[in-house]
Amino acid sequence: MASTVHVALGDRSYDILIADGLLGRLPELLKPLQLGSRCALLTDSNVAPLYADAARDALAAASWRVSVQMIAAGESAKSLAVAGQLYEQLAEARLDRKSFVLALGGGVVGDLAGFIAATFLRGIDFVQAPTTLLAMVDSSVGGKVAINLPQGKNLVGAFYQPRVVIADTATLRTLSEREFRAGVAEVIKYGIISDAALFAELERELPRLMARDAALLARVIARCCEIKSDVVSQDERESGLRAILNFGHTVGHAIEAVTEYGRYLHGEAVAIGMLAAARLSQKHAGLGAAEVDRIESLLRRAGFDLTPPDAPFEQLLDAMRSDKKAREGRLRFVLAKRIGEVVVSDAVNESEIQEALHVRRR
Amino acid sequence: MASTVHVALGDRSYDILIADGLLGRLPELLKPLQLGSRCALLTDSNVAPLYADAARDALAAASWRVSVQMIAAGESAKSLAVAGQLYEQLAEARLDRKSFVLALGGGVVGDLAGFIAATFLRGIDFVQAPTTLLAMVDSSVGGKVAINLPQGKNLVGAFYQPRVVIADTATLRTLSEREFRAGVAEVIKYGIISDAALFAELERELPRLMARDAALLARVIARCCEIKSDVVSQDERESGLRAILNFGHTVGHAIEAVTEYGRYLHGEAVAIGMLAAARLSQKHAGLGAAEVDRIESLLRRAGFDLTPPDAPFEQLLDAMRSDKKAREGRLRFVLAKRIGEVVVSDAVNESEIQEALHVRRR
Repeated sequence: MASTVHVALGDRSYDILIADGLLGRLPELLKPLQLGSRCALLTDSNVAPLYADAARDALAAASWRVSVQMIAAGESAKSLAVAGQLYEQLAEARLDRKSFVLALGGGVVGDLAGFIAATFLRGIDFVQAPTTLLAMVDSSVGGKVAINLPQGKNLVGAFYQPRVVIADTATLRTLSEREFRAGVAEVIKYGIISDAALFAELERELPRLMARDAALLARVIARCCEIKSDVVSQDERESGLRAILNFGHTVGHAIEAVTEYGRYLHGEAVAIGMLAAARLSQKHAGLGAAEVDRIESLLRRAGFDLTPPDAPFEQLLDAMRSDKKAREGRLRFVLAKRIGEVVVSDAVNESEIQEALHVRRR
Repeated sequence: MASTVHVALGDRSYDILIADGLLGRLPELLKPLQLGSRCALLTDSNVAPLYADAARDALAAASWRVSVQMIAAGESAKSLAVAGQLYEQLAEARLDRKSFVLALGGGVVGDLAGFIAATFLRGIDFVQAPTTLLAMVDSSVGGKVAINLPQGKNLVGAFYQPRVVIADTATLRTLSEREFRAGVAEVIKYGIISDAALFAELERELPRLMARDAALLARVIARCCEIKSDVVSQDERESGLRAILNFGHTVGHAIEAVTEYGRYLHGEAVAIGMLAAARLSQKHAGLGAAEVDRIESLLRRAGFDLTPPDAPFEQLLDAMRSDKKAREGRLRFVLAKRIGEVVVSDAVNESEIQEALHVRRR
């Protein structure tokens, strides 16, 4: 039995399927989509030894012609150079307009494979099989695909929806503790931005979640996907509402940038950003002190180190300003009115950010 | 007074403006679009000395912050490497999501600039100012943007509509005779695929067209844009009807490929392809012998050399099969039932193609 979340986007609608063991059922799950006979399975050097052979063999047994493309694990693969190699491999494998790209891996694999699928032959079908908690609740919902430039993350990309997302929760059992926790940061975010009951459930059930209880995981992932799906359905191309998904991300992205994406996982940086955003919310959006404490406490119980990096504040500020979401230089923050409801604000000033981060100017 | 052709594509609709002297009125024409304050003006080394300064100065005088990016003229600029340089320049110029890309040039500039606009920051606004006849009647209508791979032309790209197309027919007076003629091939194509009256007008008025009579040019360009616009409105993503625009292109693309894009201009290769398609149409679609003669005669009067390249037929066939429009290896031809009406066929066999091209197997 799989949980199914429907993402309603007109003729770009698709389902997210969530359950233990779905990778073993790939052919049956893909059959209804009437995909072409050729497939490029894109994966990375961490995931390939665990799951790629089984996925390829299952597809091949169902008569798909599969070419496996493996990239090195890590953010550096999201480059134009790697994209160029993959394009050439797809052309050599003679993929045509009916062919599809299957992304098997975490956010990096999904973002890169999605960008390739969005642009190869002006767009071919795309299927996502996320294997990390972060990818299941975040990057595989909503169609944002991208690669990085030396000047910043995700500066080149597209909005491109998959035909289906197949989230096999069994793959989460092979995730490192640290990677799993980083995904939990985004799960907590969904509670804060739109579901107080989810947040309360996380407070109650955190130990069971961290122990990766299968039933709890499937339920929580489905709920997160529903929330994101609701938001994305109303604002596919990020012109307004979709910004609420960035709670904690203004600061989080800046932390990742000033530490050159080497020290923090995305979720770890977002956890620090969420605490800062909670404090700013108290000042600007009426969030109660007790609720700030609940957010901080849940993050700490999940095991996050909430100390900002030892970087000059000016550097963090500069990184916030060059984020592509900044409009003509203006900083935008997502702030919580209460746990479960957020607003977008550009009223936050620099010294307040500094105070919320507990860092000093040099 | 400008002719205006409206391209109806829902919230991606836009106008094509056609008249002498429009480049001098850029700011006034762009004002209603409420574009952001920054602009990347992309042009090439042929067009830049003629028109880039005037365009940039006009925009700057109207308070736009313009960064000019010049690429080397020619098809080789449509590469991932050049795209990568442009992305970095746009990031350095701090273009944001409200900024826009202005393509000033022919098809290569438009295709490359459109691909950059479609993917930078997941898509920013795009304005096209075509300066060749081919770009005015073909590549600036319909939103197909792309770059090339070593394995083939236009293998990476997107469907991405401009906000407006500004076709200043005065720029056609600086085109070489050969470039202008290549554009006339596509004009003739529009007559064949859907407008017998246009075809007859071309037969009558060819000398005046080749002399670049301003009023005739504006009328003919507008009519071609209307035809393409009608087709594209019904089939934006090329799932069916749009294929009729490829009359002459199955063979034309193959000729360009086997001669490595160095010998024929696109329109010159398409002219040879149209004659072959006309002959195949006589066999498979009921086109009369007199109409085949009319097509051949008009092409010859326009000055086209209709001799196929001296390449082995097998090589041409292989190029046709690897075209991205081929579906799982099957060749597709657009054939004329009469001048003004075409059908898509996959009934054409190899020896018929060979016969239509008047080439021998080796």
